[in-house]
Formats: sequence, structure tokens, C-alpha cells
Amino acid sequence: MHSVQELQKIINKAITDTVYTEKPAELYEPISYLMDIGGKRMRPVLVLVSTELFGGDVTKALNAAIGIELFHNFTLMHDDIMDKAPLRRGKPTVHAKWSESAAILSGDVMFVEAYKMIIRVEDTILREVLDIFSRTASGVCQGQQADMNFENRGNVSIEEYLHMIKQKTAVLLAGSMQIGALIGGADQNQARLIYEFGENLGLAFQLQDDILDVYGDPEKFGKQVGGDILANKKTFLLIKAKELTAQNQSSELAWWLDGKTHDPIEKINAITSIYDSLGVRKLAERQMEEFVLRALAALDEISAKNDTKILLKNFAESLLVREH
Amino acid sequence: MHSVQELQKIINKAITDTVYTEKPAELYEPISYLMDIGGKRMRPVLVLVSTELFGGDVTKALNAAIGIELFHNFTLMHDDIMDKAPLRRGKPTVHAKWSESAAILSGDVMFVEAYKMIIRVEDTILREVLDIFSRTASGVCQGQQADMNFENRGNVSIEEYLHMIKQKTAVLLAGSMQIGALIGGADQNQARLIYEFGENLGLAFQLQDDILDVYGDPEKFGKQVGGDILANKKTFLLIKAKELTAQNQSSELAWWLDGKTHDPIEKINAITSIYDSLGVRKLAERQMEEFVLRALAALDEISAKNDTKILLKNFAESLLVREH
Repeated sequence: MHSVQELQKIINKAITDTVYTEKPAELYEPISYLMDIGGKRMRPVLVLVSTELFGGDVTKALNAAIGIELFHNFTLMHDDIMDKAPLRRGKPTVHAKWSESAAILSGDVMFVEAYKMIIRVEDTILREVLDIFSRTASGVCQGQQADMNFENRGNVSIEEYLHMIKQKTAVLLAGSMQIGALIGGADQNQARLIYEFGENLGLAFQLQDDILDVYGDPEKFGKQVGGDILANKKTFLLIKAKELTAQNQSSELAWWLDGKTHDPIEKINAITSIYDSLGVRKLAERQMEEFVLRALAALDEISAKNDTKILLKNFAESLLVREH
Repeated sequence: MHSVQELQKIINKAITDTVYTEKPAELYEPISYLMDIGGKRMRPVLVLVSTELFGGDVTKALNAAIGIELFHNFTLMHDDIMDKAPLRRGKPTVHAKWSESAAILSGDVMFVEAYKMIIRVEDTILREVLDIFSRTASGVCQGQQADMNFENRGNVSIEEYLHMIKQKTAVLLAGSMQIGALIGGADQNQARLIYEFGENLGLAFQLQDDILDVYGDPEKFGKQVGGDILANKKTFLLIKAKELTAQNQSSELAWWLDGKTHDPIEKINAITSIYDSLGVRKLAERQMEEFVLRALAALDEISAKNDTKILLKNFAESLLVREH
């Protein structure tokens, strides 16, 4: 069995070792650039862990793991164009460093490279893995579109929000785990259970992110605390707070959301106070815990009994307590 | 056996019948919009014709044919963003009608839909078809990147140009035919021959396009005659003309290419005259004919003896004599 750190190392080595020799170089340089920027490699780690959970050798799943990471980074490359983001993990984004056209086209070819890696699975599971991967890819695009739609809408329900984060974040974690499980030799039912684990884990993870954006330790969070508040981002906390104050037409919350000239620090402090008085953090944590419990219940149903199962449980928990 | 018109009809019906029910609608509307704008459906027709050539039923190849057309239109959707093109076949482009973000993301999900259709082939040929499709997709992206690179370069050789149009145009025609042939029951060697046919046909087709842009009948060409000349586009004709006048540092050609204030009609007429005096049309036609002969030689080697083989020959010829 490998530790998460060992798996990250294996993945990073495989990424570093991958040299794109095809031409023109302009098309492939942004791929290497973005892949080399790093990150926690959470999705490919989940592929490999799932393979080990069912007794498979991680080397058999490495191509698929890299394919998943390529796909994830392809979506980042295109999302960054749409979001006009100048930086990604502290480095210039591809469209900022090269050009928008380069980011569009390199992203496209990166998606092809992802498929090329994914299909290197055995014939017996090829069709199933492809179905999962394509369905996952569609889901991620749908989630991104829903997220963009929300920006232009006054009201979004909690149900709609949870569906959006499921598509945008959770299905890829779930699909990664399901593919890894199939490579490891899991049957359909076991693979479905690990998908369920991954999906609920992803939902919990995103809610945790919403909470940390407001309540996280600035030194450990890695992003600006209060960023979501400043952007009026429709997170679980904001949607819930709006729901709870909907009767009050001239609410203090609406005042802080509407004005464009508020002092940033004052706005963060004011809205955080509103969240505190409404108790939305507690509600988010309760919802999050529900997803974690569902994830753990699915994991419990999986018959495998080994250290990887424990690691997976620990991994889930490590994602959920990032502020400590 | 079906005529090309019948196959176009079958394809158009399949496209019209395809309703994307997944949400958000904003993500799928641009797909239907672009697919419904029409076009000659050359690539999917070539898939179906190739299936019939080897005695297969076209209904077996319809999903793959639609997959190829989806892929082709996905590349158009993204190319139009990069080219900042306002119109596509006389209608607003997707990024002009919706937004750039919509065109990026709808294109991405369209690419997934293409894969979903392509993989609906039988298990026995699944891996091979996927390999061809992915290789083709990479080639098309490489061709587009090379084409963009050429815009910023002073000199491009004929060899580089031919490689670019092979990637950008020919490999997709070739890959379409190879996939259709495999669905129709062709063996590897026969499928390779039909690929060769398609590739050379595609190269000839692109050279024909270069010639028609200057010498075509405006009423039949469907695009502005002289458009390439006005844009200083590095076509076979221009590259050849520059090659032939390279010794002459202050050539008339260079003068017309460098100036930015030329009258459009005068520029078209002047450069056409230069082409005439250098005889580059003849050289392009000779190169084109070489590709057609290579295509026909490959077709000749294919053992099938049926009406479809004749139709395919006629189809190739119909592409090559568009100005008459």
C-alpha cells in the first residue's frame, strides 16, 4: 500500500516524465506548463487509491490517473479564459502568458491527450471506462455553465446550488474513483459504491471550501479569506442567508450586496456578522456532515478490508478538517 | 447503394432528430444551432460511403458519421473564436450570437458528444476507431496551430504548407473514411488504403480551394473571390509566387503585399496578374493533380468492385471541378 504522499510522488514523476514531442511546440508547451505548476493531484491520487482498494497494482492505473489530471487541467485552462483569471496557483494563466487562442487550442488538444491516456485500460473495461469518463466530462461542462448562469441570476435555490457543485466538482472525483476501482478489479456494484463515496466526498469538500472562504485560517487557506463575500458569490452560506432573510425586504444583507462602494474589509466583517447571527455556518456544516456520512456509509458497504480502506477514510477526513 | 444526395438526406435527418435534453439549455443550444446551419456534410457522407464500399449497412455507421460531423463543427466553433469571425455560412457565429464563453464551453461539450457518438461502434473495432479518431483530432488541432503560426511568419515553404493543410483538412477526411471502412468490415490494409485515398483527396481539395479563391466563378464559389489575396493569406499560389520572385528584392509582389492602403480591387487584379505571369496556377494544378492521381491509385488497389467505388471516384472528381 502507498501513502498519499507516495502516490503524489508517483504522479508527479509521471507528469514530469511526459514530454510532448508532437509539433507545433506552441500547442504543447502550455500543456506541460500548466501540468507542471503542480497542485495536490487529488483526482489522480483518488484513481490510484481506488485501484489499490480493490487489490490492483497502481502502475496499471497510472495512465488513467494522468488522463484524469490532464482533463482536470484542461477544464482549468478553459475556465480561466472564461473567468478572465490572471493567475493560477500564483503563476500567470495560459491565456495571460500566451494568448486566448493558444489557451483555447492547447486546451482542446489537451482534452484529446486525456482521452488517449484514459483509453489505455484493458479491453474488458474499455467501454465502461469511456462511458464514465464521457459522462463525467459532460457533467463538468454542465456544472461550469450552471455556475456562470448563477452569476446573472438574482435567486438560486439550495437545491440548484447543490446540483451545480455536484456537476462542477463532485462528479469528477466520483468518476476518478470509479475508473480506478474498475482498473483495480472491482465489480459493477463495488464501482458504483465507490462512485457514491466520491460524489458525496466531493459535495462535502465544496461546502467545506465555502465555509473556509469565510471562516478559514488565512495562513492555511491559501486563498484570500472573504473572497466569495466580496464577489457576491452565491455560495451555500449566501444562498442560505438570503433564504432566511427573504421576508425582510430592506435587509442589511441586501444593502451590503447591492452597494458597489463598500469598503472591502467592512463588507467582509459585516456579512460575516450576518452569517453568524443567522447561524448559516452551522447549517452548512450540518449539510456537509450529511454528505460525509453518506460517503462513509457507501465506503462501509464496500467489502474490501485493507489498509487502503482506512487510508481512504483518513483521506476523506483530511479534506474535511483543513482549517485545523 | 445510396447516392450522395440520399446520404446527405439521411445525415440531415439524423441531425435534425437529435435533441439535446441535458441541462443547462444554454450549453446545448449552440450545438443544435451550429449543426442545423447546414453545409455539404462532406465528412459524414465520406464515412457512410466508405461503409458501403465494403458492403456494410450505412445505418451501422450513422452514429460515427454524426460524431465526425459534431467534431468538425466543434472545431469550427472554436476556430471562429480564434479568427474573430462574425459569420459562418451567412449566419452569426456562436461567439457572436451568444458569447465567447458560451462558444468555448459549448464547443468543449460538443467534443464530448462527438466521442460519445464515435464509441457506439462494435467492440471488435472500438479501440482502433478510437485511435484513429484521437489521432485525427490531434492532427486537426496541430494544423490549426500551424496555420496561426504561419500568419506571423515571413516565409513558409511549400513543404510546410502542404504539411499544414494535410493536418488541418486532409486527416479528417482520411480518418472519416478509415472509420467508415472499418465499420463496413474492411480489413486493416483496405482501411489504410481508403485513408490514403482520403488524405490525398483532402490535399487536392484544399489546393483546389486556393485556386478557386483567385480564379473561381464568383457566383459558384460561395466566398468572396480574392479574399485570400486581400488577407495576404499564405496559400500555395502566394508561397510559390514568393519563391519564384525571391531573387528580386524589390519585386512588384512585395510592394502589393507590404502596402496597407491599396485599393482592394486593384490589389486583387495586380496580384492575379503576377500569378498569371509566373504561371503559379499551372503549378498548383499540377500539384493538385498529383494528389488526385495518388488518391485514385489507392482506390484502385482496394479490391471492392461495386457501384460505390465508382461513386467514390465520381465524388472525388465532383470536388475537384467545382468551378464548372
